[in-house]
Amino acid sequence: MAKKWVYLFSEGNKDMRDLLGGKGAGLAEMENAGLPVPPGFTITTEACNAYYASGKRFPDGMWDETLAALKEVERRTGKQFGDPGNPLLVSVRSGAKMSMPGMMDTVLNLGLNDQTVAGLAKLTNNERFAYDAYRRFIAMFGRIVMDIEGPKFDQILDAYKERTVGKQDTDLTADMLKQVVADFKALYEREIGQPFPEDPYEQLRLAIGAVFGSWMGKRAVDYRNYYKIPHDLGTAVNIVTMVFGNMGGDSGTGVAFTRDPNTGEKTLYGEYLANAQGEDVVAGIRTPEPIAQLAQEMPEIYRQFVEITQRLEKHYREMQDLEFTVERGKLWMLQTRTGKRTAKAAVKIAVDMVAEELISKQEAVLRVETGQVYQLLLPRFDEKDKERAVREGQLLGTGLNASPGAASGAAVFDADTAQALGQEGKAVILVRPETSPDDVHGMLEAKGILTQHGGATSHAAVVARGLGKPCVAGAEQLRIDGRQFTAGAVVIREGDMISIDGATGEIFRGPIKTVAPELGREVELQQLLAWADEFRRLQCWANADYPRDAKVARELGAQGIGLTRTEHMFFEEDRLPIVQRMILAETDAARQAALDELLPIQRGDFEGLFRVMDGLPVIIRLIDPPLHEFLPGYEELQEEIAALKFELRDAKTLAEMTQKMEQIRERERLLSSVAAMREANPMLGLRGCRLGILFPQIPAMQVRAIFEAACNVAAEGVDVHPEVMIPLVGHVSELKRQRELLEPIAKKVMAQRHMQLDYKFGTMIEVPRAALTADEIAEYAQFFSFGTNDLTQMAFGISRDDAEGKFLLRYVEEKLLPDNPFQVLDRGGVGKLMRMAVELGHSTRPDLEIGICGEHGGDHSSIQFCHQIGLKYVSASPYRVPGARLAAAQAALGETTRDR
Amino acid sequence: MAKKWVYLFSEGNKDMRDLLGGKGAGLAEMENAGLPVPPGFTITTEACNAYYASGKRFPDGMWDETLAALKEVERRTGKQFGDPGNPLLVSVRSGAKMSMPGMMDTVLNLGLNDQTVAGLAKLTNNERFAYDAYRRFIAMFGRIVMDIEGPKFDQILDAYKERTVGKQDTDLTADMLKQVVADFKALYEREIGQPFPEDPYEQLRLAIGAVFGSWMGKRAVDYRNYYKIPHDLGTAVNIVTMVFGNMGGDSGTGVAFTRDPNTGEKTLYGEYLANAQGEDVVAGIRTPEPIAQLAQEMPEIYRQFVEITQRLEKHYREMQDLEFTVERGKLWMLQTRTGKRTAKAAVKIAVDMVAEELISKQEAVLRVETGQVYQLLLPRFDEKDKERAVREGQLLGTGLNASPGAASGAAVFDADTAQALGQEGKAVILVRPETSPDDVHGMLEAKGILTQHGGATSHAAVVARGLGKPCVAGAEQLRIDGRQFTAGAVVIREGDMISIDGATGEIFRGPIKTVAPELGREVELQQLLAWADEFRRLQCWANADYPRDAKVARELGAQGIGLTRTEHMFFEEDRLPIVQRMILAETDAARQAALDELLPIQRGDFEGLFRVMDGLPVIIRLIDPPLHEFLPGYEELQEEIAALKFELRDAKTLAEMTQKMEQIRERERLLSSVAAMREANPMLGLRGCRLGILFPQIPAMQVRAIFEAACNVAAEGVDVHPEVMIPLVGHVSELKRQRELLEPIAKKVMAQRHMQLDYKFGTMIEVPRAALTADEIAEYAQFFSFGTNDLTQMAFGISRDDAEGKFLLRYVEEKLLPDNPFQVLDRGGVGKLMRMAVELGHSTRPDLEIGICGEHGGDHSSIQFCHQIGLKYVSASPYRVPGARLAAAQAALGETTRDR
Repeated sequence: MAKKWVYLFSEGNKDMRDLLGGKGAGLAEMENAGLPVPPGFTITTEACNAYYASGKRFPDGMWDETLAALKEVERRTGKQFGDPGNPLLVSVRSGAKMSMPGMMDTVLNLGLNDQTVAGLAKLTNNERFAYDAYRRFIAMFGRIVMDIEGPKFDQILDAYKERTVGKQDTDLTADMLKQVVADFKALYEREIGQPFPEDPYEQLRLAIGAVFGSWMGKRAVDYRNYYKIPHDLGTAVNIVTMVFGNMGGDSGTGVAFTRDPNTGEKTLYGEYLANAQGEDVVAGIRTPEPIAQLAQEMPEIYRQFVEITQRLEKHYREMQDLEFTVERGKLWMLQTRTGKRTAKAAVKIAVDMVAEELISKQEAVLRVETGQVYQLLLPRFDEKDKERAVREGQLLGTGLNASPGAASGAAVFDADTAQALGQEGKAVILVRPETSPDDVHGMLEAKGILTQHGGATSHAAVVARGLGKPCVAGAEQLRIDGRQFTAGAVVIREGDMISIDGATGEIFRGPIKTVAPELGREVELQQLLAWADEFRRLQCWANADYPRDAKVARELGAQGIGLTRTEHMFFEEDRLPIVQRMILAETDAARQAALDELLPIQRGDFEGLFRVMDGLPVIIRLIDPPLHEFLPGYEELQEEIAALKFELRDAKTLAEMTQKMEQIRERERLLSSVAAMREANPMLGLRGCRLGILFPQIPAMQVRAIFEAACNVAAEGVDVHPEVMIPLVGHVSELKRQRELLEPIAKKVMAQRHMQLDYKFGTMIEVPRAALTADEIAEYAQFFSFGTNDLTQMAFGISRDDAEGKFLLRYVEEKLLPDNPFQVLDRGGVGKLMRMAVELGHSTRPDLEIGICGEHGGDHSSIQFCHQIGLKYVSASPYRVPGARLAAAQAALGETTRDR
Repeated sequence: MAKKWVYLFSEGNKDMRDLLGGKGAGLAEMENAGLPVPPGFTITTEACNAYYASGKRFPDGMWDETLAALKEVERRTGKQFGDPGNPLLVSVRSGAKMSMPGMMDTVLNLGLNDQTVAGLAKLTNNERFAYDAYRRFIAMFGRIVMDIEGPKFDQILDAYKERTVGKQDTDLTADMLKQVVADFKALYEREIGQPFPEDPYEQLRLAIGAVFGSWMGKRAVDYRNYYKIPHDLGTAVNIVTMVFGNMGGDSGTGVAFTRDPNTGEKTLYGEYLANAQGEDVVAGIRTPEPIAQLAQEMPEIYRQFVEITQRLEKHYREMQDLEFTVERGKLWMLQTRTGKRTAKAAVKIAVDMVAEELISKQEAVLRVETGQVYQLLLPRFDEKDKERAVREGQLLGTGLNASPGAASGAAVFDADTAQALGQEGKAVILVRPETSPDDVHGMLEAKGILTQHGGATSHAAVVARGLGKPCVAGAEQLRIDGRQFTAGAVVIREGDMISIDGATGEIFRGPIKTVAPELGREVELQQLLAWADEFRRLQCWANADYPRDAKVARELGAQGIGLTRTEHMFFEEDRLPIVQRMILAETDAARQAALDELLPIQRGDFEGLFRVMDGLPVIIRLIDPPLHEFLPGYEELQEEIAALKFELRDAKTLAEMTQKMEQIRERERLLSSVAAMREANPMLGLRGCRLGILFPQIPAMQVRAIFEAACNVAAEGVDVHPEVMIPLVGHVSELKRQRELLEPIAKKVMAQRHMQLDYKFGTMIEVPRAALTADEIAEYAQFFSFGTNDLTQMAFGISRDDAEGKFLLRYVEEKLLPDNPFQVLDRGGVGKLMRMAVELGHSTRPDLEIGICGEHGGDHSSIQFCHQIGLKYVSASPYRVPGARLAAAQAALGETTRDR
């Protein structure tokens, strides 16, 4: 059976997106629902693929089917294609399965030529209207279909406008427009070497070919590469009878959302422009009215439209984004599609639609993106202060909302300065025309990024999202000029404070207060997460080093602490001197004395954690970083000594000299200790359990502190579940040695208190060899916790600190890597190790508790993978917990969907 | 059926080593061959295990079987155990499957008591002999069986000796010896709390128990742990009729090897002492005669002995180490076992025995250890110069040959000094009483290590072998005293030159010339390796960076170059400035100009290599190390600048100031470049193909140089097979990108020359992720080469530079790791990755060429593993190639044996 290449709208439906594209399926669905859709048809995506398969020729039969469909449209409209008496005009639009920038846009008014334009003038009794449509068509056709540079048409038009009084399009007379048409045609012939095609069928043939051609245009290909959209989907072509919103006061055009896309409120939201075509709205020449205005101007049309929007939303069970045109008092629907919305709106709409019994709880959970939940919990501008800023005229403009979050800081105009000031602890916003890999070192230190050029997939946007920093991109209304930028009349010089909101794209002069979000106030989000909790199988824990973090985590739904880094406690100001004494101790006794001082402090830390996490497990990791991290830096000390030597040279008195020499000696002693601890590759050096093995007193003190704290709070009635985690194990014998040293200490403390607590000993799986030999390691581990940061570093042989700025982000940008593997778990390599570790670990110990505490524990795709390989929990930073709850539910629901 | 615990010698044979131990099996075999063995029997290793299994009780029936066997011995000797008239005396000896230091030695003369000693005196008509035997027995029994400290017996004996004129044992009269016996018994009773057991059966029971007990003695357990000998083998106990070599001029005792254990010459080699017991030889009181002397003194016995040695060697088809005693003109054989030998002798004996048709070529190949071949090719002392040194009295003594190789250097007495001088480039020998982990930093920088204490498993020996450095350990005749040592009258002070030969244990004063070995002169070794080549499946390639290395490698049998590090060429003095210009170039054009200068130089390097390797493949690795390695160090520059600033302060003239300031500016510019390239973990930073991707001009130049060189030499008629290796690939897209850049360059060069060469593009597998995704990587790689150094570093998360001194060797010492994984491939982790990579790689590309170029390519166990997982070749440093050839053959033969 020969393939069918062309479908009338009446032959399609919403489930045929693959074949008809999103726009075609939407038009078909509306047509079949009896809504007023201008007659038309769709050429399929398969035709597009066949076109490429046969060396850019229309497949056999396609053109005949197109002509047949056109005949049917002529029948329904009563007009004829190319008929000077009653000409049928059409628009030609591309329409892939998903909307895609870089694809051919729309050619309007196709079918006009020197004959039909006269017919149109006569029919509409408006010569100016007809020639205006004609000149628009020639320019659009030349530019979009034939690739002539747009400004060349603009120049001609501008020259004519110059001769008018008002200098506006609307000031051009019909006669002038006729001359414009003639000049456009001459331009066309010069550029193309052929006259402008007067034959409407020839116009149509070329336009269809151009739509097909745009599928493989550079921007479209880049876009698909970026979003991993297959190249063999193809695009459909929609041919739709023209309707005109610019035929007078009883005409108009508009767009609308069925709910407010900013807040999610259930209220029709949109804009309307009387006596205009869609183009005019986009061009920004006239300001549209709110949609409600339509109720005043054309109450019947408005009633009809509202009814249609309600029907469509019910029909699609989803908030719709609609385009419509009113032609001489008749409403035409031109498009319906799922509407884009803010994070806040996404949550509210999903929750509301459940209440309205439009969708199920499962669907609601699946409709909100993890990233949107995360975005709702990012620091944001204080609403009041932002209102003040707007009131006081500080809003400079709006760019693209390229990476969410809000930040204030001094504007700086190059990466080196951003790095220098950032490292001094200053808040800066890096402002660049656009960014390149040479700017990454500055982006790393900036609080936010603002660019004049570039879209959602520009370098700045990708890197900023990668770094989790707010970014406003493509703020084209700014003019950056050396070390300043202007926005309208305002000049911002280097060092001036600015603020950017990456969620809205707004740019402000001056600082704006930011606030931490409160889950308690997000009622709909709480509801959504409660539903997510019903569906998910994966637990969500949090990484927290202090009771205050644990408290936040618990409020955000954490079901345990997956990682407490004990060394963070060591860095606190009052403790560091003791820790340094412990490290520099020359005898075991001196070391023990320092550890004895640390014991009660650590015990106090743990007591606080255990109290907050009453009833839930708390995993505490024993000391991990290399000891030299607790000491002054080598170079810092060298500089100090050099400075002291200068001072010694200048010393005037013997006493002064003696004092300086004593200082130098003391610093040199410290320098030599630091030097002895220096490592070429500290990440792969003396740290983790290697430290615990060489200095067993340190983990011994920590385990004593953990179990004394646990017994103390248990005596208060707290339900405590300590889990001791031994880091950086690569060989089972390391774990065995440490556990055999430490568990007796735990038992002794409990025996002294006559208590038996529920506890575990386990290990991080962060060294590839540990994953590879997880069966052996599980013999001594009651739990595994994947440290995917280090596991990724070692599996890739990439030091994140060194690589991210130097080549890793560039790898992502150039698609050498699909994602930054430190953000999105690399399933092919690191994931393979994890899968092995899970299988091997469970083969030895079926009840092994396995989770993840690396940063990936907060990433959507990574959580899905953790669900798939059967982990018990993911553990992420507290503010990542709500998103993780949602992602875990989506992973579970996705599986159910697949099972059906 | 009840187990049989006791075997008469006539009931055993040489294949029963598991049950009877090595000694027992040897005695049984000799007995059954009709050789003169003193009657006796063996209690089995199973009895030992049963003893431990039942809480240290003899298993049921064992004692009865022992008594029955004793009865048979009585029948054959005509003597009776405990019979004062004609007493049977026995020796009791332990005998495990393999000889093992730390096990109970021998108790001689068991069966003597106050009655039987009188009978012995009467029978031998020599009262002094009898009481001398009795006092020896009591002391031996007290010391070995009952654990009384030996010196306590010595003190008593010494007191009696003091009263004689000659002060020697032999000066003691029979009466004095009777008093010694009485005093010994009193000592025994004081120490043990019980009288000395007069009952010979009680003596026997206790001695057997003591042998069993020694199996679990600390030293024996440590030894087994070290050599990975299972603890459940158990030891046998041999009970042998005493024969006496000290019964007059027609008696004597000796040891002999069937061939010279030093040279391998086929000549009887040994020592003989008339009228003496074995003990006396060991004690060194009298100097033994060469075995040939026996021919003069007892020609018939000598003839008989020579015949026996020949029979035994033929019988065992192996060089034998024999013990014998002549008692009143009758020859008794006491032991036969495989003789230990030097590396040189091992090779010669194996080759000679094939010529003698004693063994097959396969057996010859299996009998020589890889390490012995390696040892034969280590630098050694020039024979002539060593003879001169001996002649001139420079030999200071001999310790344990703990790690082979020869070295001369200044004696230093602490690790810090050794490190400091070593880093200055001075040759030093570290001399320590013994070493500990605190000394490793000095050992790393020393040319050799000499210790006064410690055996083959001491810290010094293990670490030195680990580092591949010569070590003489346990040189107890030295006296180390602060910063000097004395050897006899000679005093060696810090800084004096000494020389050590780790293969022989010799220590010399003064320097001795070392020479590189020549395979051409090692005729037997060449023969052995030729046989090995017949059997092995694995090819042996070499790592070589220069034509001169490739030449050596080829002479040593290399079948290809597995790794040429191109960057080594960059480090040469005349090239480094160009390389630095290339790195610091601020424009692409400047960089290209430097690369253009490097091109002909690299091309010349490659031409030399290709010519030497005519007909064989040459793998060339593209630039690998971080670029900052080619620049001065950061701290070095800092210090230079600080010094210049001091000088600037002291500048007297304006010209001088200007000059200094210019110098400072220039250095500061360089410093800032170096600073920009600094990395926290350079091993995981910007290196390998990451460099090639960021600076594609560099590998482009290298590939052009490779193919221009290849075409040039091909034009000369050389058969050239270049293989381009892309390093540090972690993701297939890196390899894809590089290959797609570089292969066209290669093709273009060949097209220009109108040549089509046989070439390959491939990659190192050195990043864990590459092994995990080898199926993907094989799509773009025609070969894999395992870089097991980096693969081990990343799989373990251990930086070798940092870890080896700080904790890794300590891990090995404490058995947290079985071996240093940088020497012996870690099969459980790294090996698992390799196995995966081989399977995945071959699944994509069945003809994928896979080899290994890490250091492990020269290690015996690692080579065996490479054979097992089906690699095509191992590549090691040139001098490792012969050992690798042997190891590869052994791996193949081992498999054949298993298959049978």
